[in-house]
Amino acid sequence: PSVSAIECLINDEETVQCLKSSDSNAQIYMPFDFIQNYFDVYGKMKHYDGYDRFEFQQSNAKVVYDPKSPYTYTGVFMTFDSYNVEARERVKCISGITGVPLSTQWHIEGYYYGIQIAQFGMSHYSKHMTQKPPTKQVYENAEGSVQSRWSSSNKYCLVENEEDKERNSRVIKFSTPDSIPLGSGASLVLGNTMEFILSFDLKMVANGSLSVVLETNDKMKQYTIHYITNSLVIDYDLKSNIYYGIGPSRTWRHMARDLLTDLKKGIGLTTKKQAKKVRIAIQKVSRLIVRGRGYIDNVTLSTSEHLTQFFDASQWMYLNQDKKTGGWKNDVERRLEGYPPIPAGWISAMGQGQGMSVLSRAYHVFHDPKYIVALSHALQPFTKSSEQGGVRATFLKTYTWYEEYPTKPSSFVLNGFMYSLIGLYDFKSLLEHEFGFGSNEQPPKVSLQISSVDLPATYKLVKQLYHDGMTSLKAMLPLYDGGSRTFYDLRHFILGMPPNVARWDYHTTHLSQLVLLYSVSNEPVLKKYFDNWSGYLRGKVAKHN
Amino acid sequence: PSVSAIECLINDEETVQCLKSSDSNAQIYMPFDFIQNYFDVYGKMKHYDGYDRFEFQQSNAKVVYDPKSPYTYTGVFMTFDSYNVEARERVKCISGITGVPLSTQWHIEGYYYGIQIAQFGMSHYSKHMTQKPPTKQVYENAEGSVQSRWSSSNKYCLVENEEDKERNSRVIKFSTPDSIPLGSGASLVLGNTMEFILSFDLKMVANGSLSVVLETNDKMKQYTIHYITNSLVIDYDLKSNIYYGIGPSRTWRHMARDLLTDLKKGIGLTTKKQAKKVRIAIQKVSRLIVRGRGYIDNVTLSTSEHLTQFFDASQWMYLNQDKKTGGWKNDVERRLEGYPPIPAGWISAMGQGQGMSVLSRAYHVFHDPKYIVALSHALQPFTKSSEQGGVRATFLKTYTWYEEYPTKPSSFVLNGFMYSLIGLYDFKSLLEHEFGFGSNEQPPKVSLQISSVDLPATYKLVKQLYHDGMTSLKAMLPLYDGGSRTFYDLRHFILGMPPNVARWDYHTTHLSQLVLLYSVSNEPVLKKYFDNWSGYLRGKVAKHN
Ligand SMILES: [Ca+2]
Ligand SMILES: [Ca+2]
Repeated sequence: PSVSAIECLINDEETVQCLKSSDSNAQIYMPFDFIQNYFDVYGKMKHYDGYDRFEFQQSNAKVVYDPKSPYTYTGVFMTFDSYNVEARERVKCISGITGVPLSTQWHIEGYYYGIQIAQFGMSHYSKHMTQKPPTKQVYENAEGSVQSRWSSSNKYCLVENEEDKERNSRVIKFSTPDSIPLGSGASLVLGNTMEFILSFDLKMVANGSLSVVLETNDKMKQYTIHYITNSLVIDYDLKSNIYYGIGPSRTWRHMARDLLTDLKKGIGLTTKKQAKKVRIAIQKVSRLIVRGRGYIDNVTLSTSEHLTQFFDASQWMYLNQDKKTGGWKNDVERRLEGYPPIPAGWISAMGQGQGMSVLSRAYHVFHDPKYIVALSHALQPFTKSSEQGGVRATFLKTYTWYEEYPTKPSSFVLNGFMYSLIGLYDFKSLLEHEFGFGSNEQPPKVSLQISSVDLPATYKLVKQLYHDGMTSLKAMLPLYDGGSRTFYDLRHFILGMPPNVARWDYHTTHLSQLVLLYSVSNEPVLKKYFDNWSGYLRGKVAKHN
Repeated sequence: PSVSAIECLINDEETVQCLKSSDSNAQIYMPFDFIQNYFDVYGKMKHYDGYDRFEFQQSNAKVVYDPKSPYTYTGVFMTFDSYNVEARERVKCISGITGVPLSTQWHIEGYYYGIQIAQFGMSHYSKHMTQKPPTKQVYENAEGSVQSRWSSSNKYCLVENEEDKERNSRVIKFSTPDSIPLGSGASLVLGNTMEFILSFDLKMVANGSLSVVLETNDKMKQYTIHYITNSLVIDYDLKSNIYYGIGPSRTWRHMARDLLTDLKKGIGLTTKKQAKKVRIAIQKVSRLIVRGRGYIDNVTLSTSEHLTQFFDASQWMYLNQDKKTGGWKNDVERRLEGYPPIPAGWISAMGQGQGMSVLSRAYHVFHDPKYIVALSHALQPFTKSSEQGGVRATFLKTYTWYEEYPTKPSSFVLNGFMYSLIGLYDFKSLLEHEFGFGSNEQPPKVSLQISSVDLPATYKLVKQLYHDGMTSLKAMLPLYDGGSRTFYDLRHFILGMPPNVARWDYHTTHLSQLVLLYSVSNEPVLKKYFDNWSGYLRGKVAKHN
């Protein structure tokens, strides 16, 4: 096509060089660099077999939840099966002591962030539901008579096969001198080039360590990860050794370690908030070395151990719930633009909701009544206002809200509110499906007696909290509608600021949450907003008058 | 520049032909036809001396009010000096009886629409303030002794110069036979090619008419407009005669007729809601012919008669206020999408506000106490809810609102609300400046006694209404902020619909109103919203997180 250059004046403010076609149409063409910057849109050249095409997108949104059947509290959580929480730059590492991530988002030392741990748990639960079963190799279960794979670095390192009465299984007993260096001891050859999740049952009777030798595609070639019976979080000698503390481990525990994550977090360790990006692949898991005195069984390499990781998250949620308030407290000060800082120790409705979604699934899978106790306690912050240390707010004397951030005044963050509704829904559904509570108001026959929990009262409360929240959601959704994008919160109304427009990430979270809540409630207004707001991803904006 | 064609895929939905530059940048260029349609923006090629330039605009907004000094109730009203109410297609004509516009917006027969009449009045008031004084030619004031310009179509047509005791001035007495045809009688030569606003004082003692002969650039060349002492609204014989009823006119009245408007509305007369567009120019106002028996004085042609037109509007507002409610009732059913129809007889806070802005100026100019009485009555609908026939609403039990449309449930139209605040401000200012009411709470010495109005109580009420409204405005402005455009109302929240995005016309009205209210209140939040929302005209949108 034949074109000539033409100056274009933008809003009487600046000029941009455009093109004008020389044919009779005299069409004007504007450069995409300008369009992208001015309209905040996306585009890239794609190369296909035989032709190139430029692909324009209104948004950079990722996949929206699209369930084939209605959401349930026992199923996949939204699109969390695609999450990889441990890979996030602000995850310092997966703790060897708890098995859950440590965050560096607000403190570089790393601290436990309840919402992140819940999401870690729920991503593994969801992967467990959607991925095909792992392949696994069991290298030692002590049921055979000969330990031919074991070798020792010196004659004082002993490996024996012994019956363990507590576990009613044969196990490997090992014993090495205290004086031998880390990385030496009794060694088990693995030589696995495919499966990189290491799991085992371990009980130590004195301090010691378990080391894993890895061959990689890095120029260093060989790295060793040492899991040590101390309280170290993570360390790296900047050469080839990475260290994780696993605590004393004096009772039997089942551990699963994602060796590639442990390797990357070690090499990527920095003193900054964000870990270094590390590109490395494991080529072979060569061997495992135990040192000190203890017992080991079921040494396995597999492609995944999602249920163990989900169990670790559930256990963390259970153990770290504040006994007094029922809240998962966030022990860092939180600052939101325009608001006074929220002092450390705050409780989030999102955290409560995500915690409840984890524990509802944990009860479903593990059937441990302690999870019902924790779920019941988790409702308490929903009954108390932010001023009282809870998560409850009210919009203009009319609508009940559950606050992701208990700011004073309120901030009404939408996605956190919907996560809290999903958590309430999960617990409510659990009580209905597994304890017989239901809409016909007859007191169910509760077969399981749980001391300290009044189950009928708990059911009544969770039902009311869910109902009140859904009423508010249906009424207040329009306040988050900008006509071409959604708002993250109502800070603009509360503080008189410009609207805090949700980035496309959060916009798709809104959409996923709406479709989830629609699938369980059939409320037409949720479908309507899902449809309208889905259109915004493709530039379909609200009409003007 | 050398370019090649490349296909562009839009949001995975459609393709558009674009260009790719052949240089190493490989810049993509998108056609403006697509951009205009997809993003709802504007652009046109402009031709200057020696070069062409393409001019891109985010909006098609017109001028925003930009007062050089703070707004006052005695000054120009926003940008109304640029309004030409009578030229609107939905104005049927300017009534010969009342001197104010008749609307065809909802009825083709034409009916009086209070808000339109108030805007007609305020546009002429504002033009009176901003335009240079008119040029005028007085053709007859009866103060000279000889009526040399007058001629008669037959010997029974008499024209005499006579002293009028009521007006304390000499006037022309005329008398013609009843039987002569319309357009004949006693004729006064005018021959004016410059000034097309005809004004005169008239008193009839029997039925008759006043006709004006115009030469135009139309192929018809000559038209005659007949002003007749009957109740006809407007008529046109489809040839060269246009007819307006002026009522019996048995007492002295001052009339001003915009001859070009009267001509165009006659020729453009249709049976549809919108008048035909007429392009015609007057080349000469040739002569005036009186018929019947009566008196005339001060026959003048001028370039404007804004104060007469403003007086006619003020008089209409005064005479047509409902005595029982103090409202300017709208006698047509009103339908707003999503709401039950509002039955005829409804009162609008915008109408009340615009009426108060007119009457405040009318009192300022004409000092007739009847306007104070009307202003005081005009407050009453602000104290009653829509259910009670008033204009008052409350947003979520918290904020007082004055409704442009008293829908049930409420609609919270922003521009109408701000017009009502401006009207309240005008009346409040009038009471402060002309009656000595003020903020120091001392009862002022009211020099003017107005029976039936308790001025101190009225002042207290208008002050409270204005204060409550301003409180709501400051708090609720964020709810109208879409992040890239403004919302016309809160229908989306009330009815759960997509937001009713304001077209740029209304957006600039919002801006003009904000800057006006800021100029009198100095409330920083108004300035902040004015600044943010002004940016939207140039594509400056709210940030995402
Ligand atoms: Ca065993
Ligand atoms: Ca005179």
